[in-house]
Amino acid sequence: MVSRVKRLLIGRPRKSTELDQEKLTKVKALAVLSSDALSSVAYGTEQILIVLIAAGFTAIWYSLPIALAVLGLLAILILSYRQTIFSYPQGGGAYIVAKDNLGVSTGLLAGGSLLVDYILTVAVSASAGTDAITSAFPNLHDHTVAIAVTVIIILTIINLRGVTESASFIAIPVYLFVLSIVVLIVSGLIKYAYSGGHAAVPEIGTAVSNVSLFLLLKAFSSGCSALTGVEAVSNAIPNFKAPAEKNAAKTLAMMGGILGFMFTGITLLAYWYGITPNIKETVVSQIAESTFGRGVLYYFIQAITAVILFLAANTAYSAFPLLSFMLAKDKYLPHAFMVRGDRLGFSNGIIFLGVASALLVAAFHGETDNLIPLYAVGVFIPFTLSQLGMMIRWKKLKPAGWKAKFAVNTVGMLTTLTITLIFVITKFSNVWVAFIFLPIVMLIFFRIHRHYQNTADELRIQLDKDKPCIKGSTIVIPVSAVTRAVLNSISYAKSLTDNVVAVYVGFDEEEIRKMEAKWEEWDPGVRLIVLRSRYRSVMRPLVKFIDTVEWKNAATDHITILIPQFITKHWWQAILHNQTSVFIRTYLMNHKDIVVATVPYHLNK
Amino acid sequence: MVSRVKRLLIGRPRKSTELDQEKLTKVKALAVLSSDALSSVAYGTEQILIVLIAAGFTAIWYSLPIALAVLGLLAILILSYRQTIFSYPQGGGAYIVAKDNLGVSTGLLAGGSLLVDYILTVAVSASAGTDAITSAFPNLHDHTVAIAVTVIIILTIINLRGVTESASFIAIPVYLFVLSIVVLIVSGLIKYAYSGGHAAVPEIGTAVSNVSLFLLLKAFSSGCSALTGVEAVSNAIPNFKAPAEKNAAKTLAMMGGILGFMFTGITLLAYWYGITPNIKETVVSQIAESTFGRGVLYYFIQAITAVILFLAANTAYSAFPLLSFMLAKDKYLPHAFMVRGDRLGFSNGIIFLGVASALLVAAFHGETDNLIPLYAVGVFIPFTLSQLGMMIRWKKLKPAGWKAKFAVNTVGMLTTLTITLIFVITKFSNVWVAFIFLPIVMLIFFRIHRHYQNTADELRIQLDKDKPCIKGSTIVIPVSAVTRAVLNSISYAKSLTDNVVAVYVGFDEEEIRKMEAKWEEWDPGVRLIVLRSRYRSVMRPLVKFIDTVEWKNAATDHITILIPQFITKHWWQAILHNQTSVFIRTYLMNHKDIVVATVPYHLNK
Repeated sequence: MVSRVKRLLIGRPRKSTELDQEKLTKVKALAVLSSDALSSVAYGTEQILIVLIAAGFTAIWYSLPIALAVLGLLAILILSYRQTIFSYPQGGGAYIVAKDNLGVSTGLLAGGSLLVDYILTVAVSASAGTDAITSAFPNLHDHTVAIAVTVIIILTIINLRGVTESASFIAIPVYLFVLSIVVLIVSGLIKYAYSGGHAAVPEIGTAVSNVSLFLLLKAFSSGCSALTGVEAVSNAIPNFKAPAEKNAAKTLAMMGGILGFMFTGITLLAYWYGITPNIKETVVSQIAESTFGRGVLYYFIQAITAVILFLAANTAYSAFPLLSFMLAKDKYLPHAFMVRGDRLGFSNGIIFLGVASALLVAAFHGETDNLIPLYAVGVFIPFTLSQLGMMIRWKKLKPAGWKAKFAVNTVGMLTTLTITLIFVITKFSNVWVAFIFLPIVMLIFFRIHRHYQNTADELRIQLDKDKPCIKGSTIVIPVSAVTRAVLNSISYAKSLTDNVVAVYVGFDEEEIRKMEAKWEEWDPGVRLIVLRSRYRSVMRPLVKFIDTVEWKNAATDHITILIPQFITKHWWQAILHNQTSVFIRTYLMNHKDIVVATVPYHLNK
Repeated sequence: MVSRVKRLLIGRPRKSTELDQEKLTKVKALAVLSSDALSSVAYGTEQILIVLIAAGFTAIWYSLPIALAVLGLLAILILSYRQTIFSYPQGGGAYIVAKDNLGVSTGLLAGGSLLVDYILTVAVSASAGTDAITSAFPNLHDHTVAIAVTVIIILTIINLRGVTESASFIAIPVYLFVLSIVVLIVSGLIKYAYSGGHAAVPEIGTAVSNVSLFLLLKAFSSGCSALTGVEAVSNAIPNFKAPAEKNAAKTLAMMGGILGFMFTGITLLAYWYGITPNIKETVVSQIAESTFGRGVLYYFIQAITAVILFLAANTAYSAFPLLSFMLAKDKYLPHAFMVRGDRLGFSNGIIFLGVASALLVAAFHGETDNLIPLYAVGVFIPFTLSQLGMMIRWKKLKPAGWKAKFAVNTVGMLTTLTITLIFVITKFSNVWVAFIFLPIVMLIFFRIHRHYQNTADELRIQLDKDKPCIKGSTIVIPVSAVTRAVLNSISYAKSLTDNVVAVYVGFDEEEIRKMEAKWEEWDPGVRLIVLRSRYRSVMRPLVKFIDTVEWKNAATDHITILIPQFITKHWWQAILHNQTSVFIRTYLMNHKDIVVATVPYHLNK
């Protein structure tokens, strides 16, 4: 039953050799990896204007130089990540680059930030998309959490089906979104050219008395939230069709171009139309309304924007499992993250991401706005570390033309560091939790690593010295009655050794007398030892008896507890039987150095 | 940790020989077994008046003849249960009596009704007591379910501590309740004697035009809800100190006397003071106010009434575990209900009752009023069956003076049958669910019984013919790497037989080559067989391999799968390792007739 439902949801299992077919073309990769970055267009300009409007309407012209600065930063990031892609064709996420050049701890800091960040991405995007829906249908407002969690479940299932199927599913809305924003920008420009913009728009360069540097920095850092998601491509190089690094670099460039164009267009139109941020209507919605009026095109743009916000979460579904795989391979996360599922994705990473983000949504009742600054810090810390790592790398390797490359990464590092600091300073109340949480995550990484190393040390053998050694054997069979299961166990035990003893734990004298009489009558050729239990516990006297056996025989014999167990035909029948044998097995296996064997007897009815 | 918390809540374990100390004296028994019956005084009179007032104020005089009829029924029940106690000194609940004289099915009908009824008792009493609290403190109203469930948890823990401790805890409020109601009645009578009652009270015998027989029957049956709980004593005879049956009979008589006195007194005072039922204030509250005014005594009576309603639930905690023990002994319920816990109570019955009633409270959001008629039917069905059983018994055994005894039970049977029918007719909308639920419960009883009988048949051996037989042995060791755990397993296996083979499941060729080379270098004297898995599943190729081994060797050899397993020092470390060995063990044990043995290797760090 369970396996049939799984087959229906996830699809048939795939052979390991099908892995190559799972690789992404550029067109599909752009869809899968850029939805997070591109969806930023839906709120990037708005974030800048929200900060500026605090200084009055005349301040909105500052959105143009700020947007230019953001574009400059985008260009720096793209150039810098391009360099990373060619330097690390196996996958050059911040974790790899930082670990490789700055040491393990720094790498883990970058990796930990990113992992937490991907969970935040899913939670924030799912909540944001749900807000778009509930704005349109206010009577759904009570079900925010349910809708967001449903979206997360759907994304999880899609990703469990596999990367390319997920890509096919996602490509259509992503390209529709890009197309509709391009149509919006072009139509807006044409309209502006013919009929002009808002009359009172402040001219560029107008002096505004109460604009401080702090305000401008805050606006700039807010605008930088449009740049989250840019790192996705460099993490995912192994997912590309060959030649992977070239395809990845081209995809990155395409993404940068599209993002830059859309961001510039929206910011320009917002300025020309004199649009101010409004709690009830997004900036993109206002531009669309000014351009098209509230017609079919307007509603289409709104709908596709909601969809792209949901799909932004999908970027994390590509990146999280890959990054957790890398950390698991380096023994900083449980091995379970290394297992490829039936459809060749890293199922455990996908499921973990889904569960963690759903819990986050539930914990915040779907109101995840306060998580956004945290989420931005979580991106810019690894950005900074990754660039710093690249700087060190150029300095060390000094390939031809390294100075130019070093310069690019230096500018990038300084910029992202500055932005990180601006975030921390301007939004400390939302961000402080990262300074508690990240050290805990790193501590967990190190604890896991230590455990794996200790385990490997303990289990390692010297191939030339440690050889099997032969010993005798003592078998103890706990019995509760004379049954066919006991008969089978005794047959088995006597086939292995003559050193077999049956143990019976009795609670009252009459029971014990009956059992002894029956055993004597049966006479299976094995001695029955009776233990009396005044506290009606089977475990305590049994363990005491085994202690004695160990003390007497452990030096010369392997000691085996052989448990006769009948297995019911249907699982629910098991509740009709006291599962003493399960307790005995679990307890002994965890506490004693003896072999625990079970002789199953399968009931047919 | 768990065991320390358990020790704190439940107390130290007790020896089986301490069982006799757990037996109840008459004084304690009265407290434990009568709280349900006595608490009925808090609402019995009110239930009658609520029905009568529908025919106008003048109809309230009918409460006196109806109360007389209820008292008559109480006398009949007491006499009849007295006879049962002496006939069944081992415990004469409706289940035993009906099974013994009317056959197993009838007995199960009675037993099933009572079991369901005890669960309803706890749910209804806990909710009613909570209502008393939230009436006094309205701001607690949102927490009704939480309060009721907390009360149920406390009662469960008290009862897990053991019968006599529970009795000591309960005796004080029960006797305080009895005392305060007696004080109320005596004070009320004195006040009435000196200053007279309500001026306009209708005289007894006043003609009331719109009083129908149906109305009177309904009022009578409502009044009969005061009689639930009377059967508790006869179920619990084994819990009494010797001579058990005499002590039980005396306790029953004492309970009948006290209940009769209190019920009569409250009904008379209600009539004399011309009290009418009021949704905001109970009848007892009105009488107390008329007698004492709103002083300390008034509030004390209110508080102790709330406590006694909670304690009414405790009767079920004595009766349910005993009855489920009897049903389990007869193989109609899981054996688990027969296990005595650390404190000698039937812990599983106590826990089951607590969980089921808490779920019921949660499912009905604490509004369990509609369950009361169902609960009354659940009492009167076994009442009737028990009396019918006693009739048959007298007819069959014909001891000296059996005709008088037969007459008592016949009157009792006819009366309780009539009341059952009145309930079904007048409150069908609340009661119909019993006619669906009881057959399901009985079906479950029969299915459980059949399973136990099938199991016994399958496991039974012929002591003279079925003897152990000796065979050879083949041992298969699944290995995933060359580790100390594998070394231990091979040492163990080679000590038992030369027929040992190690199996390795590989996913890719490089891994396989490495493993083979390492095995060859180690050379432990055991052949390594490599299985290739294209779908990355360990189970499937392993099971196929075992099928082959079975096909070749099962006739001559016992086949053992020997699983090397390292046990982490702390339980949480287990999530760092893929629990493949657990899956292998579980799957093989459930699906194959081979022995599954585990060689534990305990990690120290």
